[in-house]
Amino acid sequence: MSKIVKAAVMVEPGKMEVQEFPWPDLEPGAMLIEMEMSGICGTDKHAFKGEMILYGGTEAEQHAVFPCIKGHENIGRIVEMNGQYLDYDGKPLNIGDRVTMCPNIICQRCYYCRHVYGWPYCADNKTYGVYFPADQPPHITGGWAEYMYIFPNSFIYKVPDEFPAWLAVNIELMVVTSNVDRAKGYMEFASRGFGLMDTVLIQGVGAMGLAHLIKARILGAGDIIAVDISDFRLKLAKGFGADYTINVQKTSFRERLEIVKELTGGRGADMVIETTGLAEVVPEGLDLLRRGGTYLEAGNFVDAGETTINVHRHLAAKNVLLLGNTNHPNSEYYRTIKMMQRYRNNFPWEKFVSHRFSLDECRKAMETSLDEENLKVVFDMSKK
Amino acid sequence: MSKIVKAAVMVEPGKMEVQEFPWPDLEPGAMLIEMEMSGICGTDKHAFKGEMILYGGTEAEQHAVFPCIKGHENIGRIVEMNGQYLDYDGKPLNIGDRVTMCPNIICQRCYYCRHVYGWPYCADNKTYGVYFPADQPPHITGGWAEYMYIFPNSFIYKVPDEFPAWLAVNIELMVVTSNVDRAKGYMEFASRGFGLMDTVLIQGVGAMGLAHLIKARILGAGDIIAVDISDFRLKLAKGFGADYTINVQKTSFRERLEIVKELTGGRGADMVIETTGLAEVVPEGLDLLRRGGTYLEAGNFVDAGETTINVHRHLAAKNVLLLGNTNHPNSEYYRTIKMMQRYRNNFPWEKFVSHRFSLDECRKAMETSLDEENLKVVFDMSKK
Amino acid sequence: MSKIVKAAVMVEPGKMEVQEFPWPDLEPGAMLIEMEMSGICGTDKHAFKGEMILYGGTEAEQHAVFPCIKGHENIGRIVEMNGQYLDYDGKPLNIGDRVTMCPNIICQRCYYCRHVYGWPYCADNKTYGVYFPADQPPHITGGWAEYMYIFPNSFIYKVPDEFPAWLAVNIELMVVTSNVDRAKGYMEFASRGFGLMDTVLIQGVGAMGLAHLIKARILGAGDIIAVDISDFRLKLAKGFGADYTINVQKTSFRERLEIVKELTGGRGADMVIETTGLAEVVPEGLDLLRRGGTYLEAGNFVDAGETTINVHRHLAAKNVLLLGNTNHPNSEYYRTIKMMQRYRNNFPWEKFVSHRFSLDECRKAMETSLDEENLKVVFDMSKK
Amino acid sequence: MSKIVKAAVMVEPGKMEVQEFPWPDLEPGAMLIEMEMSGICGTDKHAFKGEMILYGGTEAEQHAVFPCIKGHENIGRIVEMNGQYLDYDGKPLNIGDRVTMCPNIICQRCYYCRHVYGWPYCADNKTYGVYFPADQPPHITGGWAEYMYIFPNSFIYKVPDEFPAWLAVNIELMVVTSNVDRAKGYMEFASRGFGLMDTVLIQGVGAMGLAHLIKARILGAGDIIAVDISDFRLKLAKGFGADYTINVQKTSFRERLEIVKELTGGRGADMVIETTGLAEVVPEGLDLLRRGGTYLEAGNFVDAGETTINVHRHLAAKNVLLLGNTNHPNSEYYRTIKMMQRYRNNFPWEKFVSHRFSLDECRKAMETSLDEENLKVVFDMSKK
Repeated sequence: MSKIVKAAVMVEPGKMEVQEFPWPDLEPGAMLIEMEMSGICGTDKHAFKGEMILYGGTEAEQHAVFPCIKGHENIGRIVEMNGQYLDYDGKPLNIGDRVTMCPNIICQRCYYCRHVYGWPYCADNKTYGVYFPADQPPHITGGWAEYMYIFPNSFIYKVPDEFPAWLAVNIELMVVTSNVDRAKGYMEFASRGFGLMDTVLIQGVGAMGLAHLIKARILGAGDIIAVDISDFRLKLAKGFGADYTINVQKTSFRERLEIVKELTGGRGADMVIETTGLAEVVPEGLDLLRRGGTYLEAGNFVDAGETTINVHRHLAAKNVLLLGNTNHPNSEYYRTIKMMQRYRNNFPWEKFVSHRFSLDECRKAMETSLDEENLKVVFDMSKK
Repeated sequence: MSKIVKAAVMVEPGKMEVQEFPWPDLEPGAMLIEMEMSGICGTDKHAFKGEMILYGGTEAEQHAVFPCIKGHENIGRIVEMNGQYLDYDGKPLNIGDRVTMCPNIICQRCYYCRHVYGWPYCADNKTYGVYFPADQPPHITGGWAEYMYIFPNSFIYKVPDEFPAWLAVNIELMVVTSNVDRAKGYMEFASRGFGLMDTVLIQGVGAMGLAHLIKARILGAGDIIAVDISDFRLKLAKGFGADYTINVQKTSFRERLEIVKELTGGRGADMVIETTGLAEVVPEGLDLLRRGGTYLEAGNFVDAGETTINVHRHLAAKNVLLLGNTNHPNSEYYRTIKMMQRYRNNFPWEKFVSHRFSLDECRKAMETSLDEENLKVVFDMSKK
Repeated sequence: MSKIVKAAVMVEPGKMEVQEFPWPDLEPGAMLIEMEMSGICGTDKHAFKGEMILYGGTEAEQHAVFPCIKGHENIGRIVEMNGQYLDYDGKPLNIGDRVTMCPNIICQRCYYCRHVYGWPYCADNKTYGVYFPADQPPHITGGWAEYMYIFPNSFIYKVPDEFPAWLAVNIELMVVTSNVDRAKGYMEFASRGFGLMDTVLIQGVGAMGLAHLIKARILGAGDIIAVDISDFRLKLAKGFGADYTINVQKTSFRERLEIVKELTGGRGADMVIETTGLAEVVPEGLDLLRRGGTYLEAGNFVDAGETTINVHRHLAAKNVLLLGNTNHPNSEYYRTIKMMQRYRNNFPWEKFVSHRFSLDECRKAMETSLDEENLKVVFDMSKK
Repeated sequence: MSKIVKAAVMVEPGKMEVQEFPWPDLEPGAMLIEMEMSGICGTDKHAFKGEMILYGGTEAEQHAVFPCIKGHENIGRIVEMNGQYLDYDGKPLNIGDRVTMCPNIICQRCYYCRHVYGWPYCADNKTYGVYFPADQPPHITGGWAEYMYIFPNSFIYKVPDEFPAWLAVNIELMVVTSNVDRAKGYMEFASRGFGLMDTVLIQGVGAMGLAHLIKARILGAGDIIAVDISDFRLKLAKGFGADYTINVQKTSFRERLEIVKELTGGRGADMVIETTGLAEVVPEGLDLLRRGGTYLEAGNFVDAGETTINVHRHLAAKNVLLLGNTNHPNSEYYRTIKMMQRYRNNFPWEKFVSHRFSLDECRKAMETSLDEENLKVVFDMSKK
């Protein structure tokens, strides 16, 4: 077939351009997705800013490759298959099915794949939209494209037709919050982990912070305190159910500490979730936590630098339970989709996507995504 | 009664002297212990060096008071009671009973006392050997004395007569390792927490490190790797069952990383326990940990300064489960005593106490305790 | 004072009558509550039917005493105090404060009180409305009375003034659902415990079943299936958010199994909660559970007889996680009150109380409570 | 090749005979093991007695097939491969490697395989030594044979050469105890799960009971009480480290209850493990458990009938945490092997295998295995 596939390519840090690629030949067991929508995620922005080391210091460490077709928050429809393809639960997929995919292509053989539930830590992980260079076949391995190539044995999940694209594009983001479930799983009544009606403070309420806010609420949080530098985002957080908001630019650390202590009987938040992606906010987050509280480090997905902590005060005397997170259990997609269906009317999901662009507008899309006053920016393939 | 009680007093940082105190009047519900032995603990050494903030940044924050009769690792016999006194489990104690005590006197009313199992976090905690000044009655509130005053409602535990004093003096230390149990409680097979046959690396094998080594072994550790600057202590660790030892002064960080990776299939240790008390070893400890591993911060009991971490590499990408610890559940004393009885012949417990001094030798005792080549130094009241 | 206190007395099984008691003298540390409302609980009905062994086979085993002023789901106001009284968190209470109480008076000294979080298992437990005979002073030790005597050191909790009495009277009931939290705490993603969006089946949706339904929903349940013999109660369950209902009288076991399998991809419910109080429903509940599912036995609070299970099929091959429950952690009252405030408008709480009676109508109240078509019957002291 | 393979065949319940089978053709990805030793397990004995429903009431339910070459506790060496075969962790196996195998061949696609760690619950499980009839190719699919056929993608684990065959043959059995680890993972200090120094009572100390005894000890058990009908086995249990033994045939239930209460401060055992395989012992086991204790149902691997329990007394009032178990996480083989190496000299492992027979002696082997006074009976291929 002589058709051509258009895609938005990150040529090098700071440089986006539209390129065209040949229609791919499908290897046995592969398939092709016609894209509906693909999000710009925080890690994409980091790569654009030239900051990208992903999974730093682990066997899975990856560095940004260029040129690259990014996009790992994807929704689309199957248009071609070379042989049978099974969804995550082993049921056959068909042409026309609406699907999303786990961005990780895992080896299923390494120690981590054999020993950790949900395959989140593969030592030989390849990520759609990150790992594959655009100048080598099959080229179209990210979602910022008209069509996306799916290798054999990827984890593919059917998405209900009634999900608008702007809702479906957030499924991956919502799965990434599964550390909140885990904190719940470490619950030993009031003492530890994430207990019923615990006060949850979220550092940074961009898309990732709002996703965690939603999950915390659904799992029985009490007061939720949103902390951010942007009034726009704090207002959004209110709309998603935050009980209190604190603007970092209008308060000192002492004032924030005082506010949080006042809201928590003098103790500090029961759980603090870091979703700013900035290394330097971590010490403050730990200071705002109560003794024996839970700290979720869920923002530094790429290497964003160092910070200085007082080991006694921030970790030992705090008796902290700290859970780091980059990645998610692939096994949680279907229950996340179920959750989004059930809570469809409980949150203003439509506000997650603040801007939509065509592939041709890729430079503007990228720039828009970098503005703190915006939320999630997506490529909407229905825009021409 | 005109009797006089002799005690070793820390008059100010760097200064120890023997003083005499009046025989105390017992308030209703109090009792008096004739001391057999009392240990010099790491926090005592810190106070001597003038570094002491305990429970920094929490409601329970305490600063060193001077003059102070220290000593919270205690074993002795009841010699006087003013009314009935009950042991931890509510059974009456009698004159002549051999006992140890939890050093914490808790309020039993604050949020933490009401809501956290084992009362480890009291917001109004008063600690024997730390909180009370020696120049105010009842004066003898630490174990470095011939007799020790026990306030009403302290947590007192009977100790079997067959325990030598040098064994009994380590009970408190062993209880402090209960975070290892907790890590076990977070076990989700190989994925998280402290699993069967997990490789455990211990940073610093002084008394605290050896105590954690023992606990890790009893709970099913696999290979145990001891890391220290002292060959004397590393040899001790071998005697307590460490499988491998690494001397920090004879290796570079790169070499240590390589050794640990080689011992762990390229992954890093499943659990790392910090018991050096030094802030700066934490980043290395996190680097030596496998992805998804467990880090126990169990050494910085007093404020020992800051360190610099890379939030992405050390916490997020590491997917760490980090548990801070200062203090212990009071409820774990009796089962710890049971454990020491059962495993009496499995570890060279007699080596824990490396030096014994009389109260009169208090300066020498303190100096000896500061020498890295020594282990636990105790005051032995049978020495005159 | 010569005032007289009126109370509804269960004189013997099957016999209720109004009696008058002398205004009590308060021992030091006691107080007196003017009752607003007190519920008739399932255990009260059992006692009325002469079936009552409570905590059977444990150190805390209690048998019904007669005559007895029952009532342990209570809301009222403090009208007299003999000395200071502290609430659960140690804050002073005042005359006029609106309060509820934990019905258990615990010893705080037994092994269980010393070792189990939240004091649910006291070996020497005395229960308001159960343990004390009405013919001995201070007589008025249950809530079915104008005034209720509160012994020193009971666990008392302030209740917000904006809670209507019919809401406040259900606080204790809601605390009893804390096993659902615990199941959540045993969550290891999809594999075990109560995971996000898990299908929850509730056997019996009387007040206890609805309370568990609410808690399951607040903690992130997926589909909730209510099973009962009463269409009245099943309709109520729908109103509280059940997704599916099954009437046991209109279906065979085979049909129920089929329905549940169809709703769960052929597997069975992820969690089943037994709140009928009937021993014989347990095998069916286990059959309706998926492999590796969680079974909460939360209904047989008194000895309601035996049942026959197949150990292989119901327990071993089912790989069940089964949690029995009678009682609740006292520590969970305040967070339960917070939960009821936050979710005030999410559930039709007002339907919990289906009938209100004055003390004078105590016979009718008891009879009404026994009718399967009714929900919670209460004594409303504002009715004369 | 014209070679013939000899095997012991269970022709029908009660009937064993030696048969010969053709040397198999290996399908691509298959391999052939030369057997060293294969155990007779409890489920084999049940099949011989005609009692076999395995995984009853689940999607994986299997019924005994006849004729069948049984044997799923296996140790042998690879002698033929058709293509590459990878071990569990993905490393290539070679001819001459000594291996054991997980008896389960799982689909890796069903809900359970996708969602439960370690693949213990496959809905489409096929078991070596159980599922395949001996009269159909490749015939030799159990370990009671000179050679055993290994299908592609089975879970194969290398076994150290220094393991004697009689030690290696118990690896599978030891993995089956992983529920003890799980109970440890549910530990919330003294309150729940399997805590440090907890008293563990084991009902039935045949091979399965001894395996659980070992695991409980390695994970920090306190007193271990063995209960059995055979003095021979009780003496064995003592040798493996049981602190107390009770012979059921020499005591009444009342006496056993009294003994256990006396050994546990009046409370009952903290954990009871059922490994008799008899349904009727479960109520007694629950009665011997303390309130809030943990009950592991680990014996009724096949349908062994029903029993009668009092739901209030045995489950609800007991506040039991009950874990059913049939099967094991495949992921635990390597750490189990590590454990057996480390604890090689701590237990008299050599006593596990009480009798060895050649294949030709298969009738006698089976009869011997049914005698209560014997422990594990194995086929030893080095015997001719």
